[in-house]
Amino acid sequence: MSCDPDALRRAPMVRVLRALALREVSSEALVGACLSAIERDNPSLHAWTHVGADAALRDARASDQRRAQGAALGRLDGVPVALKDSFDVEGMPTSLGLPPRDAWLVHDDASAVSRLRGCGAVILGKTAMDELAFGTMGSNPHGGDVGNPSLPGRASGGSSAGAAAALAAGHATVALGTDTLGSVRIPAAFCGLVGLKPTFGEVSRVGMAPALRRLDCPGVLARSVQDAGMVLKVLAGYDAGDVACRARRVPLALPDWDPAALRVGLVSDLRSLGAAPEVVDAFRAAVSAAGATLGHARPVSLDLAPLEVAASRRAALLLMEADILAAHGDRVEHASDRTRGLLEYARSRTAVEAMAAEQRLDGHVVAVRRLFEEFDVLVLPTVPTAPPALGAAEPANLADFTALASLAGCPALSLPLPGGMGLQLVGPRGSDLRLLELGEVVHSVIEATLEAS
Amino acid sequence: MSCDPDALRRAPMVRVLRALALREVSSEALVGACLSAIERDNPSLHAWTHVGADAALRDARASDQRRAQGAALGRLDGVPVALKDSFDVEGMPTSLGLPPRDAWLVHDDASAVSRLRGCGAVILGKTAMDELAFGTMGSNPHGGDVGNPSLPGRASGGSSAGAAAALAAGHATVALGTDTLGSVRIPAAFCGLVGLKPTFGEVSRVGMAPALRRLDCPGVLARSVQDAGMVLKVLAGYDAGDVACRARRVPLALPDWDPAALRVGLVSDLRSLGAAPEVVDAFRAAVSAAGATLGHARPVSLDLAPLEVAASRRAALLLMEADILAAHGDRVEHASDRTRGLLEYARSRTAVEAMAAEQRLDGHVVAVRRLFEEFDVLVLPTVPTAPPALGAAEPANLADFTALASLAGCPALSLPLPGGMGLQLVGPRGSDLRLLELGEVVHSVIEATLEAS
Repeated sequence: MSCDPDALRRAPMVRVLRALALREVSSEALVGACLSAIERDNPSLHAWTHVGADAALRDARASDQRRAQGAALGRLDGVPVALKDSFDVEGMPTSLGLPPRDAWLVHDDASAVSRLRGCGAVILGKTAMDELAFGTMGSNPHGGDVGNPSLPGRASGGSSAGAAAALAAGHATVALGTDTLGSVRIPAAFCGLVGLKPTFGEVSRVGMAPALRRLDCPGVLARSVQDAGMVLKVLAGYDAGDVACRARRVPLALPDWDPAALRVGLVSDLRSLGAAPEVVDAFRAAVSAAGATLGHARPVSLDLAPLEVAASRRAALLLMEADILAAHGDRVEHASDRTRGLLEYARSRTAVEAMAAEQRLDGHVVAVRRLFEEFDVLVLPTVPTAPPALGAAEPANLADFTALASLAGCPALSLPLPGGMGLQLVGPRGSDLRLLELGEVVHSVIEATLEAS
Repeated sequence: MSCDPDALRRAPMVRVLRALALREVSSEALVGACLSAIERDNPSLHAWTHVGADAALRDARASDQRRAQGAALGRLDGVPVALKDSFDVEGMPTSLGLPPRDAWLVHDDASAVSRLRGCGAVILGKTAMDELAFGTMGSNPHGGDVGNPSLPGRASGGSSAGAAAALAAGHATVALGTDTLGSVRIPAAFCGLVGLKPTFGEVSRVGMAPALRRLDCPGVLARSVQDAGMVLKVLAGYDAGDVACRARRVPLALPDWDPAALRVGLVSDLRSLGAAPEVVDAFRAAVSAAGATLGHARPVSLDLAPLEVAASRRAALLLMEADILAAHGDRVEHASDRTRGLLEYARSRTAVEAMAAEQRLDGHVVAVRRLFEEFDVLVLPTVPTAPPALGAAEPANLADFTALASLAGCPALSLPLPGGMGLQLVGPRGSDLRLLELGEVVHSVIEATLEAS
């Protein structure tokens, strides 16, 4: 063995898998290094809410044994993984950003967790989140606000805050979050990571706590586009227990694109859509760096009148509040007064208003479908602002650029830009693999160009 | 020409298409005969709310000209069709069972109507329905309760009441209805017709008034299973404007079944599920008559505890009330006090209760999916009782046997049994064509056996 496990903690997964395969490092050593780093960093970072050190080391040793014996290996064999606390893990509590209680211990893995384990991944534990996934800043009055290892003193973004912070701190190789209106992509951008929200219904949500079921998606945080794609391919599939999964399933469409033919829409009226000047600058620099790899890119003035982003945001928030109360009613009493107050608003609205909100979101779906009759990919920033200071108030429009894809069930990939911002690629449902291939090229071109300049 | 148009009014569509093709009858003569019959019957039958006689005769003559000139023909060229008043037709009001108003005149055809016209079908007009599709008896305080031509003095069933009555009276060859919880299949059974509710999302609902959008399906009323299948194949397809239609579409699964291999579940505990004795007897006689054509039929005690039919019914009704109010708010003031009173209940319920109802229906979807891991087809009665007297109160459980498929988005085919009852075949999503082939055989065997006995 000739590889420093502490350096590998920060490596992309493909590099980790190579080191494990060549026996340059053991999974036990890598997992041990992750656990030590967590123990050292977490008191100030607040990224983890539950760490299963013994189980993780046991699973890592089992993986090392499989490799030693030449036994059948999973695709992610021995890779340390972080999970947002929305996912059930056997023997751990699911606390959803509330103060942990014994009663919340669960006895089954979520479907997504089973799939990761089935591929040999090593589950390290559960990461912090905004209370009940209702927030985008990584603020938490119980466990403390989650820090941003990439930009100290800045917010991590949320609600998959701890998953992003853990990955940025080198505590795990990949992480699972959940994305309802942007909860994977926002912290990915703030923490300098790749964030993937797959097509709605591609990945089972059985055993994943709901926030707004008509939008909820498991998502992936990773250091590279390739890593995110490998995890997606492990997770995607039909599950009879999730109403969003379709039995008559078209598997993820094979990537079928060519820069020369790709119809790319660059969202151009960023200022009027609420983007801060630094975001406009970063976006322009990235698009310019990407150049011809973005195909037939042409500016699209995203006519938001039919999309009515602000009204759709309010509609989605009402439904989210109502869905959280309906799903987690008895838990909500453990939330902070502030979060409870926000959620309880839904009790003052009628069933008719809820169905009117659903109708508005249906209108958004149709409007976005029309956009994708004209374009194959839309390119826009991930967040409208650079990360605010740790503990600052939540900007009201923080999820506006991510919600576009969420509301329509579309896949979206966020690539990191300097300064805690992100470049987002959005495609029609099922085009996940195309976004990943395109994103891979764009990411590498942008990185090389921006570093050189 | 050697065929009496008045006899053809009551013939299956395949027979009508043959007569038209052989020029034994003109579409104009057939449509004229339908219009005369409507004029004669409707004052007491109350089946039609708007008849477009001039346009229908014009379209019929155009069809006859195409045939005379050997011009390209549509699949349904010259066939007279009745439409439930939920479907928009250019130049006609969409009144939804309320007193017609000039303001409700529409200027575009619904997608389903466009498809029928595109195949040469002749639209006769709009048929009566329970107010706002909220009812199952064909009762209407404005236009009068819809009669049952097959069983005079009995209710027609609803809410696609006029469509069924018109077909049973020989006013049209096929009819379109809408089915949210059973609104096509209930009147089909009561009036002695075949009723088809396709897989949710197979047929576009653009231009069709909503009742409960997560369940609403256009459906077909016909005299034979074959007719229903021909109309379905015209109607099925993707429409970007309907959120229920999926772009990544698996077309209707080709029928793939063999009686020897088919896993058929016969719902056996009918009495405890609320079926009247005459329904139990009719169902047993039909199943016995069908014999081996029903494949490996075995009794299935439908464990309704996980399905919680009564609770799901209440949840669906709450959402339906809320969705109708949200979609048709200003129209509701024109409804009767009784219907308004029922709908307004949704204003006293909170958004949280609406989302809890959605969660309950999601649970029903999963429970029915599990059933179809064990069975290919479920066989059960369509209605729990024979048709009540015209004007009688609505039995609370009238839609319980049809709601099973509706709540889960499954296709369901109702075959007529003597006495205004029905035998229902239900399959998993996408199995429409299998149900139609199986239903064709079962229907003919049942008819022959029951007639002989």
